[in-house]
Amino acid sequence: MEIIESIINISEGRDNETVKYIADSVKNTSGCFLLDSSSDPDHNRSVISFVGNRKSLPIAVQEFFKRALEKIDLRKHHGEHPRIGAVDVVPFVPIREVTMQEVVAFSKEIGEMLAKTFNLPIFLYEESQKIAERKNLALIRKGEFENLPEKMKDPVWRPDFGPSLPHPSAGATVVGARMPLIAFNVNLGTKDVNIANAIAKAIRGSSGGLAAVKALGIVLQNREIVQVSMNLVDYKKSPIFRVFEMIRSEAKRYGVPIVGSEIIGLIPQEALCEAAEFYLKIENFAPSLILENKINDVIRFS
Amino acid sequence: MEIIESIINISEGRDNETVKYIADSVKNTSGCFLLDSSSDPDHNRSVISFVGNRKSLPIAVQEFFKRALEKIDLRKHHGEHPRIGAVDVVPFVPIREVTMQEVVAFSKEIGEMLAKTFNLPIFLYEESQKIAERKNLALIRKGEFENLPEKMKDPVWRPDFGPSLPHPSAGATVVGARMPLIAFNVNLGTKDVNIANAIAKAIRGSSGGLAAVKALGIVLQNREIVQVSMNLVDYKKSPIFRVFEMIRSEAKRYGVPIVGSEIIGLIPQEALCEAAEFYLKIENFAPSLILENKINDVIRFS
Repeated sequence: MEIIESIINISEGRDNETVKYIADSVKNTSGCFLLDSSSDPDHNRSVISFVGNRKSLPIAVQEFFKRALEKIDLRKHHGEHPRIGAVDVVPFVPIREVTMQEVVAFSKEIGEMLAKTFNLPIFLYEESQKIAERKNLALIRKGEFENLPEKMKDPVWRPDFGPSLPHPSAGATVVGARMPLIAFNVNLGTKDVNIANAIAKAIRGSSGGLAAVKALGIVLQNREIVQVSMNLVDYKKSPIFRVFEMIRSEAKRYGVPIVGSEIIGLIPQEALCEAAEFYLKIENFAPSLILENKINDVIRFS
Repeated sequence: MEIIESIINISEGRDNETVKYIADSVKNTSGCFLLDSSSDPDHNRSVISFVGNRKSLPIAVQEFFKRALEKIDLRKHHGEHPRIGAVDVVPFVPIREVTMQEVVAFSKEIGEMLAKTFNLPIFLYEESQKIAERKNLALIRKGEFENLPEKMKDPVWRPDFGPSLPHPSAGATVVGARMPLIAFNVNLGTKDVNIANAIAKAIRGSSGGLAAVKALGIVLQNREIVQVSMNLVDYKKSPIFRVFEMIRSEAKRYGVPIVGSEIIGLIPQEALCEAAEFYLKIENFAPSLILENKINDVIRFS
């Protein structure tokens, strides 16, 4: 069974009824399944994640936008988190029996449909965007909703689909395909945050480390230790075990041990199994060797 | 959704039509799903694995026995593999949302039902058997079908359910709950099988090593290396990463490297994830952190 995950970020995190009304668009769509909905009142933002396939998702997403645009007016919106749209970001993630290439094509179809239906500018990002400077969400969002009319006058910021002016109340939306994100933190047995920072710098792509790793050093006050806090944006390119071994190697230089690690949110089974495969040196590893995968396949296709 | 796996061994591995006829009893039962059927003509034996729950499995198993006892006559059976029954062994393995304790109770109900329905002696084994000397399959099967009338005269070998004489054509059947078995082999960078044997002896439970590990040293002729070939009979008690690290430690003594490993058959997701958890030192690990588990749960309960 094909499964694509979407993790939509909306600019409403205070009115629970509105968030529920919008998220219910997923529940009401046959073949779509709501995974999680979490709201942050300070950010005034909610993240709604759900799964479906290329047939069911367009129906849910269209209804989702209809409800969000009906309820959210960015002209009255305040919150700590940067945003350009009532529906701010719509990522699509390949989970099962669908390629990244197929999800890229699918995300473009969705973008085009949304632009037409709601007269809304759509910016493609990540894997769905060919122009290097427009792949990055932070750059697309720079200036936020308030600066969007000015920003979009520059032909560089012409949207991929839809009008070249922002929607009056809903701004613009960023749509694209990306790999599942893994939030992975490694704890170091020292109080010295300089060491965490030095290791973060060594391992992150932006300063010459592993390309698909973002990293920061932070202090864990209540445990009196420090942490390398990371986002692994593509665990196929920069796998979790390689990240871990690189941190171990860098930490050794300072005589500092790794005392633990943590996964924030969800992690794909494959990322963990590849770590087991690496450490146990399994020569013949394949997802089909996993009992639960075999059982799920058999039940699904019966 | 509750899932129990059964891996039934029958004494027929040459007549494919008969094996198919028997295995089809699973396919014809709603709520049961055939995973695999594999036959060995030399052993004249087939292994049929399938999943279901406590409602669907009794229906499939009863029909399975009806067909097997109709077709298989042990008085005419020859094969290399030891056996005491037309249906020789019926293990039940807890896979999902069911405890070992519940599967033990279930296996006894099945044993009682089979004894009554087919007038067949049933020996409980593994987790379902309290008497230590009768837990072991090899001991129950010692003497095989041909010696069963003599063996069962001894009150020590009175069956747990059913008549105290073997079934004329079907002998007796061994039924019980057990953990999933992991067949795991570790390859060593040496030609010296004595080293593989010494390590196997060090790590296996029977000679003082890890309790739930069976191990043998063997030669891999075509690769000119040796292997520690293992069955992990309870990966919760003797986890795969501890087995691997113990082999690494023993091999070091001989200056021999581990060059690889292999999984034969299927491995539970949990066994691999626990290895990742161990090596990556994940502090907050739980199966619910795995994206696919979350998705499966949501889809299942919708």
